[in-house]
Amino acid sequence: MKAVYPGSFDPATYGHLDIINRAARFADELIVAVLNNSAKQSLFNVEERMAHLELLTADLGNVKVECFSGLLVDFVDKVGANMVIRGLRAVSDFDYEFQMALTNRSLNSNVETLFMTASTQYQYLSSGLVKEVAKLGGNTKDMVPAIILEELSKRFV
Amino acid sequence: MKAVYPGSFDPATYGHLDIINRAARFADELIVAVLNNSAKQSLFNVEERMAHLELLTADLGNVKVECFSGLLVDFVDKVGANMVIRGLRAVSDFDYEFQMALTNRSLNSNVETLFMTASTQYQYLSSGLVKEVAKLGGNTKDMVPAIILEELSKRFV
Amino acid sequence: MKAVYPGSFDPATYGHLDIINRAARFADELIVAVLNNSAKQSLFNVEERMAHLELLTADLGNVKVECFSGLLVDFVDKVGANMVIRGLRAVSDFDYEFQMALTNRSLNSNVETLFMTASTQYQYLSSGLVKEVAKLGGNTKDMVPAIILEELSKRFV
Amino acid sequence: MKAVYPGSFDPATYGHLDIINRAARFADELIVAVLNNSAKQSLFNVEERMAHLELLTADLGNVKVECFSGLLVDFVDKVGANMVIRGLRAVSDFDYEFQMALTNRSLNSNVETLFMTASTQYQYLSSGLVKEVAKLGGNTKDMVPAIILEELSKRFV
Amino acid sequence: MKAVYPGSFDPATYGHLDIINRAARFADELIVAVLNNSAKQSLFNVEERMAHLELLTADLGNVKVECFSGLLVDFVDKVGANMVIRGLRAVSDFDYEFQMALTNRSLNSNVETLFMTASTQYQYLSSGLVKEVAKLGGNTKDMVPAIILEELSKRFV
Amino acid sequence: MKAVYPGSFDPATYGHLDIINRAARFADELIVAVLNNSAKQSLFNVEERMAHLELLTADLGNVKVECFSGLLVDFVDKVGANMVIRGLRAVSDFDYEFQMALTNRSLNSNVETLFMTASTQYQYLSSGLVKEVAKLGGNTKDMVPAIILEELSKRFV
Repeated sequence: MKAVYPGSFDPATYGHLDIINRAARFADELIVAVLNNSAKQSLFNVEERMAHLELLTADLGNVKVECFSGLLVDFVDKVGANMVIRGLRAVSDFDYEFQMALTNRSLNSNVETLFMTASTQYQYLSSGLVKEVAKLGGNTKDMVPAIILEELSKRFV
Repeated sequence: MKAVYPGSFDPATYGHLDIINRAARFADELIVAVLNNSAKQSLFNVEERMAHLELLTADLGNVKVECFSGLLVDFVDKVGANMVIRGLRAVSDFDYEFQMALTNRSLNSNVETLFMTASTQYQYLSSGLVKEVAKLGGNTKDMVPAIILEELSKRFV
Repeated sequence: MKAVYPGSFDPATYGHLDIINRAARFADELIVAVLNNSAKQSLFNVEERMAHLELLTADLGNVKVECFSGLLVDFVDKVGANMVIRGLRAVSDFDYEFQMALTNRSLNSNVETLFMTASTQYQYLSSGLVKEVAKLGGNTKDMVPAIILEELSKRFV
Repeated sequence: MKAVYPGSFDPATYGHLDIINRAARFADELIVAVLNNSAKQSLFNVEERMAHLELLTADLGNVKVECFSGLLVDFVDKVGANMVIRGLRAVSDFDYEFQMALTNRSLNSNVETLFMTASTQYQYLSSGLVKEVAKLGGNTKDMVPAIILEELSKRFV
Repeated sequence: MKAVYPGSFDPATYGHLDIINRAARFADELIVAVLNNSAKQSLFNVEERMAHLELLTADLGNVKVECFSGLLVDFVDKVGANMVIRGLRAVSDFDYEFQMALTNRSLNSNVETLFMTASTQYQYLSSGLVKEVAKLGGNTKDMVPAIILEELSKRFV
Repeated sequence: MKAVYPGSFDPATYGHLDIINRAARFADELIVAVLNNSAKQSLFNVEERMAHLELLTADLGNVKVECFSGLLVDFVDKVGANMVIRGLRAVSDFDYEFQMALTNRSLNSNVETLFMTASTQYQYLSSGLVKEVAKLGGNTKDMVPAIILEELSKRFV
């Protein structure tokens, strides 16, 4: 099974890595797909976010990092996958995820979305939260890997 | 019973038409009220949205399309209605709808809000989603009527 | 419009009366339909519950109290109505109400369910809660009308 | 990937078949695991439920029907799988599913739970609902396959 | 501040202890109030549950274990407290907790309910779940303290 | 117990005052902490919002109004408190509150968040709603105290 794990990853958190590590165990190939959304202001540009993820997944042989713009289902098709992986937090926009999954199915019924539950310690974690905490001078070491922590500290001096 | 079905309708979707058709069966008169919200950027202006809805409801004798700005309860009063119709999706901002209904009641206790459940196949549908999919080049033919599909294709070439 | 407001009403609460009073203002005829569910243990039998509701709605000329068993949509059909009214509380089993409305639509697409929001002061109220509080000796005077209060006091000495 | 799709299937619905058909496309092997819960009263016994599912999945070469009692994670282990599939409805006990997935992870971190979204037309469907409707004489032909419809009609004359 | 932490504690879990330990830091006196609900079948009787909690809170000088039946607000009054503490899980019956808090306020406006969020690792934990897992032979060592683990093993051989 | 009640209070509503009055009864000292968020456009500046709250809490001897920027947990620490108070509405962003509470605990485990349920009549109220209604010319006298009503009328002529 070839699966795509899409997201903004601005920045990658321990929550994302948890999903990546677990999905890499059952997927034959996992493509981490970084959304290149020019409209939305991001903290790190798409090349930086891809570089972070490549470092963080370097030891996972079946994980590749790519970027995409446009419809997710088109990207999934293009790379020859048929599976989308999404993490689901109890403390999350469940409605949003559901709407996306049903929409993607209506756009391309060959593309399945599989939801994985975030591990308990990451149920509250989101990239937006990490940026907010970092901007206000808080310590995000329990939220993001060391290399992201360092990058964040450069952005928010 | 004279009822008002308010919304942005930017653009009208099959979900909106489903509610309009069903509400027109029990309301004596149904006013589809297009919000003229100058502050919020819309894809179609209020005249265009009214024109779409007039075409789409042409065969419903007891349906009229109007626009409004200001407080919804004031508009409802002005047109001599006492009922607001809203569709409710399981995948929706239920809290928002609830807050609006309770606020409108506190502003004018003569105005009732009646919620109808969206039909199952439209539970995930929203105007925002339609615009997002259309912008990214996706096919929205299962989401909007043909005339809207054509209008969308002109906006997102 | 002829509408049916179904429920167990075991016992009727101020929340139920709030919905009945408001629905009676826009429905031409409102049938309060008491569920005769032999399987489920009730505090008051169906005749008692109907008697309570008849007393409580005596001054509403367009309200009738009836009982039903079997499928709600069949009862709605039988009495020549095409509308089901349900109260919706923010603190409520929204999922259950939604499932019922969608199921009833799948069983008979002529039957609409309209949801009304409970008034703010009754958002937390349910018959089950009233019984629990009364059983434990609590005062339910803010939850139920005087005649129900009296009946409850006879049951829970 | 070898996956287990557990449930009571009392009876199997079109919602279950939708998940089975879609999961069978990406799983190498899919075991439909019927819960043999002696404590809970069921309409069909475990042998009947297995027979229904075997008929309904006869044309799916990589699907097997088995039954289990005890901990789900132990069954998953025993059959050499590492994946649990669950359908998720917007109109459903999301909290229950989440709790089960997190509990199963805490019991055996090798067992992943993957959630699939039910197709839009089955978002409201549940076995309990089917039984309730059938018991009250309603038509469940849009909810269950023909063979289940026939079995239900024998039970609820 | 004198506070009451009510519950069934059948059995006490790490989730309960987490709330007790944290509440004991800010309350002057904390009464853990074990519900003596004769109607509901419990695994451990009220004396056993109190004994468990006394052992588990032995090192907390300002914590007392008592039992109660009847209305919680009456018990709170009787012991001279004015505060009820409840843990809140994202994966929980939030609606139930809300309804209880609002009802208790309507019964006695001097009694406040304060909700504390369960720690992330206990968000999924409940006594019912612990019993279910233990009954099926699962290991609950990450869910309950050693003394409860031992008691559970005696009940479910 | 020294507690902090943080918020934007743009403007203060009856819902806020309800929480302040109730929290002031059990806290030894209550600091109403006005968020000085330069990034977010506010209707009243931080000095105005503090002045409003000082007037509205003038008769509460143990309540002080301060402002803060940066991390809430740092402010709580700085003023020597260990408790954060938040109101919780059934019609509210529960997920947001939960995420904030869990994040604050991960940043400083000495800081507890206690949630109080808003009184029933204020379950639907929010500052954003008040501003929206006032802007559209609606009467907010049931939503905000007289001094806020007057200030709003000056802003939205």
